[in-house]
Amino acid sequence: MITARVLIRPKEGILDAQGKAVERALPALGFEGIEHVRVGRIVELRAENADRLEELCEKLLANPLIEDYEIEIA
Amino acid sequence: MITARVLIRPKEGILDAQGKAVERALPALGFEGIEHVRVGRIVELRAENADRLEELCEKLLANPLIEDYEIEIA
Repeated sequence: MITARVLIRPKEGILDAQGKAVERALPALGFEGIEHVRVGRIVELRAENADRLEELCEKLLANPLIEDYEIEIA
Repeated sequence: MITARVLIRPKEGILDAQGKAVERALPALGFEGIEHVRVGRIVELRAENADRLEELCEKLLANPLIEDYEIEIA
């Protein structure tokens, strides 16, 4: 079995609503000097092998039209 | 400036509804041998320093009652 970590992020140029919401909340909470906030998802799983992980991302975990994904094998 | 990555996951013992939903969808899509799916969030940001990142997680990014977080500095 392998342990894999999939990072899913909004594509460049796609509005990252959650990231913008965090950025807007920062000043009211007294945080300064924090920028370029991007919010995505992380999916961690165990699999027998890595053969079909890319297909899994394309079909189920990510929306390839608006999201990029990156697979890290532990 | 530093680049930081915050990984936010449901705590052990807390229901991970998204992870369960992925697991339930796998057989219908023909995926076998994938288990222990956990879905969390990833927040990437640039900051002047790492001094207040833990506070940022506690106050804004994560819900410490039900989520664990991990800060990685690039």
